[in-house]
Amino acid sequence: PKAVQKLSLPDEVSTELLDLLKENGFTSDQLSTDVDIRCRHATGHCLEDVFRIQTGEIGRCPDIVIWPLTEQNCFELVELARTFQWCLIPYGGGTNVTKALSCPPKHVDPRPMVSVDMRRMKKILWINREDGLAEIEAGIVGRDLVEELKKEGLTMGHEPDSIEFSTLGGWVATRASGMKKNRYGNIEDIVREVRLVSPSGVLSQNHHQSGRAHEGTAFGRTSIGTELKDLAIGSEGNLGIISSVVVRVHKLPKETQYASILFPCFEMGAKFMRDVARLSPALRPASIRLADNLQFSLAREISAGANDKSMIMKTLQRLYVGSWLRWKPESICACSILCEGDNEEVAFQLKQLRKILGKYEGIEMGASNGASGYEMTFAIAYIRDFALSQGIYGESFETFVPWSRCQALCDGVKRDVQAAHERRFLPGKPVISCRITQLYEEGACVYFYMAISGQGLSNPCDTFAAMEHEARESCMRHGGSLSHHHGVGKVRSCFLPKVNSPALNSWLRDIKDGIDKQNIFGARNGALSPDAIGVD
Amino acid sequence: PKAVQKLSLPDEVSTELLDLLKENGFTSDQLSTDVDIRCRHATGHCLEDVFRIQTGEIGRCPDIVIWPLTEQNCFELVELARTFQWCLIPYGGGTNVTKALSCPPKHVDPRPMVSVDMRRMKKILWINREDGLAEIEAGIVGRDLVEELKKEGLTMGHEPDSIEFSTLGGWVATRASGMKKNRYGNIEDIVREVRLVSPSGVLSQNHHQSGRAHEGTAFGRTSIGTELKDLAIGSEGNLGIISSVVVRVHKLPKETQYASILFPCFEMGAKFMRDVARLSPALRPASIRLADNLQFSLAREISAGANDKSMIMKTLQRLYVGSWLRWKPESICACSILCEGDNEEVAFQLKQLRKILGKYEGIEMGASNGASGYEMTFAIAYIRDFALSQGIYGESFETFVPWSRCQALCDGVKRDVQAAHERRFLPGKPVISCRITQLYEEGACVYFYMAISGQGLSNPCDTFAAMEHEARESCMRHGGSLSHHHGVGKVRSCFLPKVNSPALNSWLRDIKDGIDKQNIFGARNGALSPDAIGVD
Ligand SMILES: Cc1cc2nc3c(=O)[nH]c(=O)nc-3n(C[C@H](O)[C@H](O)[C@H](O)COP(=O)(O)OP(=O)(O)OC[C@H]3O[C@@H](n4cnc5c(N)ncnc54)[C@H](O)[C@@H]3O)c2cc1C
Ligand SMILES: Cc1cc2nc3c(=O)[nH]c(=O)nc-3n(C[C@H](O)[C@H](O)[C@H](O)COP(=O)(O)OP(=O)(O)OC[C@H]3O[C@@H](n4cnc5c(N)ncnc54)[C@H](O)[C@@H]3O)c2cc1C
Repeated sequence: PKAVQKLSLPDEVSTELLDLLKENGFTSDQLSTDVDIRCRHATGHCLEDVFRIQTGEIGRCPDIVIWPLTEQNCFELVELARTFQWCLIPYGGGTNVTKALSCPPKHVDPRPMVSVDMRRMKKILWINREDGLAEIEAGIVGRDLVEELKKEGLTMGHEPDSIEFSTLGGWVATRASGMKKNRYGNIEDIVREVRLVSPSGVLSQNHHQSGRAHEGTAFGRTSIGTELKDLAIGSEGNLGIISSVVVRVHKLPKETQYASILFPCFEMGAKFMRDVARLSPALRPASIRLADNLQFSLAREISAGANDKSMIMKTLQRLYVGSWLRWKPESICACSILCEGDNEEVAFQLKQLRKILGKYEGIEMGASNGASGYEMTFAIAYIRDFALSQGIYGESFETFVPWSRCQALCDGVKRDVQAAHERRFLPGKPVISCRITQLYEEGACVYFYMAISGQGLSNPCDTFAAMEHEARESCMRHGGSLSHHHGVGKVRSCFLPKVNSPALNSWLRDIKDGIDKQNIFGARNGALSPDAIGVD
Repeated sequence: PKAVQKLSLPDEVSTELLDLLKENGFTSDQLSTDVDIRCRHATGHCLEDVFRIQTGEIGRCPDIVIWPLTEQNCFELVELARTFQWCLIPYGGGTNVTKALSCPPKHVDPRPMVSVDMRRMKKILWINREDGLAEIEAGIVGRDLVEELKKEGLTMGHEPDSIEFSTLGGWVATRASGMKKNRYGNIEDIVREVRLVSPSGVLSQNHHQSGRAHEGTAFGRTSIGTELKDLAIGSEGNLGIISSVVVRVHKLPKETQYASILFPCFEMGAKFMRDVARLSPALRPASIRLADNLQFSLAREISAGANDKSMIMKTLQRLYVGSWLRWKPESICACSILCEGDNEEVAFQLKQLRKILGKYEGIEMGASNGASGYEMTFAIAYIRDFALSQGIYGESFETFVPWSRCQALCDGVKRDVQAAHERRFLPGKPVISCRITQLYEEGACVYFYMAISGQGLSNPCDTFAAMEHEARESCMRHGGSLSHHHGVGKVRSCFLPKVNSPALNSWLRDIKDGIDKQNIFGARNGALSPDAIGVD
């Protein structure tokens, strides 16, 4: 309701748009100018978005939301956009945390803004069981994709924490990473082919003999120059609409086993993680996460109440009668593990872990702790919205960091956030906690949670944004990357000049100019954002 | 000597070029207009190139060859090319088999052609042992790279059969694949960062805080939109000069073990390979290759003489007193295996293979046969040049094919080649043989050798080219891809319209137009070749 007040709804344009669309065969249930729906389509899941939805200060919204049903529909939309000068913004599940879906302000782009909601394009087009491939429409939501494939005894193995709402096309467009990447890879390892509806028409590769690709098409490793999928991955809505994706699918694993390990401190746990990362890929568990003491304690509080704490202490006591006293409750940290494969493989994986574990004084705590560690992750992902209603402003952010700088980064970012909080005389203490998640031989993804109290702040959301900006600077100063998997969008585009050489930033804009002269896909994310360009 | 006759050497231009380059700080030992050197720089290693070198019919050659010593030199060259309207063609080891280095004819591009030979840029810039990363100049030749890293106890693990001559930059530009890709990955898995000297300037990503990247920079998985390395990989000289590359390096493996397995027929061997491909990556040997009966017999003849044959038969007899008679010498095929890792890992890998082996009546033949299988591969790679001098025209070609169509493709291509040979009334019989090399869950690389006798043919090289064209068509008809690792260049660009949708082909040209408006990197490979465009 508040939203309506602050929105200036350009009704005239919508009517014109609506009429044009209907004339061109779009039915009214494929179109909406509803204010709430339009607000949702201008926002993602970052704190600012959630806050703005709550306060009604959305800024510019799409003039209309359209649900294409087919690739042909997408193609027609691009033609209409070209003819009538619209700006198209593809929409997946709206779970991005980068403001990728926000519309450029009117003075930057006066054209009608059209949100293209892909979620009705959700069919599995074909499955090739023998080769383990499937082509799936890009609008399918993660949760449905998992269900549909499960019915066939299959899995794609991509499980981002946002799987409830995010879509296949969104994963590709943001270069997503799932928690089981050790086993199944990141999205770029899973995707074999992308169809992209672009201003030049429908782009596809490997579409043999001019027909549409099918089960028998040679999808796999090729060397045929520039690959379409490499450009579609990470395109953040800038280049076109991803209409369908060919992905690797696998038989559901025979065995799934959880485990958990406690370490006396984060340093020990982090070294353990590094050693696990250096195991050959198949010897690593499908997923392994190390939570710092704060997250560990929080998880324990929330999941099992106070009893759990004493249970853990008792186990420690029993196991290490002589030495357990050295373990301080305020420094213990926990590793949650998920192994997948056939029996022998899972056993071999666990054996490898046990071999390393002793070196770092790790103690196995059993399967149930491991499983609840994962449940927690999903819970924590949505706690933020609840916290906000309690006046607590929180957000997660992530980075990739080489092993050599991992510990220093975790410590340094925490210290810098605390210092920034003090320097600003903010109320109470900040919450700043981290976990090590996706592993690579050369480094890992570190995932931070940061929260502050908004009590007494005149503009808590902006204060938080400033804190987050400082935290990102701290990450990068400590050797972390701009983003491991969230992407750039508009939130992090101001950092791009520190990442891309100036020539690269202009090169990327030249590419865009070459293939989308009218800027039909004008969402202006990443290198195309005014922040990255340095002008508005 | 013959070469000189057929070349019309544009001396005037060279003098002008030479003077300009010297004025701009290039020294005379960085420059050459020698005819032989220029011929070499216009050719690669495909049959036609080798033939043309022998007959002297090279076609257009670069006007000058330049050896840059630094990235700054490369940058200066691009500036000069822009100012004075030159066309630059980066040169690595000249081992491509795609005519990627041939110069466009004068009527297509009248500008001076400048070959940029990268082989004096061969320094290892830094090694970060802790994270397993190194930055290396792009002109380093494979063999030297292996030696240099070995001194440090390290390996990059990329071993194409052309490793003696091909360069790091060439691997990136052609999207190469080495025989140990099961363990270390293909070039795209190994490369973490590329610096590209482009018409827009020096492109680099992850170059933190505007400084040059160094040991401590966060090289690794990132989600920052379009990635420079994705565009550099497979660029085939079209987009700029790759000046240095950050790659993954690994400690040398503790254990290297060869093995070999015989199968009663190719079908059985191929099914075994498919099952191996479905093992988790680390359970697969670093390299595994299945040679068909012809290659197996050939290898045996060449490597060990006639004794070997009876030795193998005796082993079979000893092992399978009852059943060995079913094995026909003319259908036996052989699998060469190379395992790397620590002791336990290698043992576990071999154990996995032995578990599968029995299902397909495979018999282990021991380590020495495995090792000689690999030596053979390197030998075969260069037999072609010798054969040519004997009037035998031979060439290898490769494809990726999904498992479901692998056997049919191997059989079908052989049949089609034989039929084409008959249809053309060519002398004798063609040699057509294949092996299955790089494995993927969804399919494999199949590598063919084809040879014909040139006896009595008026234009044997063209005849062979026509045969090869038909063989490629056959590959694709049977579900194979245009190329698994050789790339497109100019030889295979005429097939691109069957692979890329028309919109994609024009999109790729639009990208090029956007970032290289003057077409400074005008070698016209892949989608930029006139064949792909359909006009000349
Ligand atoms: C609680 C929570 C947990 C999260 N956990 C993870 C995680 O574990 N791993 C991870 O990688 N990310 C995670 N994220 C971030 C987010 O879920 C991902 O970025 C996701 O990939 C976005 O997908 P989406 O379908 O929601 O896309 P949207 O948010 O709708 O869009 C994101 C961008 O992609 C573009 N886009 C979407 N669909 C298409 C299409 N079909 N064609 C072209 N462009 C398209 C949009 O234009 C936009 O630029 C999380 C987010 C939240 C809120
Ligand atoms: C006997 C033999 C065996 C082979 N085995 C394999 C194999 O196992 N696996 C495999 O993948 N290939 C193989 N090949 C093919 C060939 O070796 C590869 O394509 C190799 O990557 C080419 O590298 P090069 O340095 O020789 O490049 P070149 O032949 O010099 O150039 C190839 C292309 O790359 C471009 N290029 C080269 N260097 C740069 C640079 N620094 N910057 C920008 N562009 C550049 C050139 O302009 C050209 O377009 C084989 C070839 C032969 C003759």
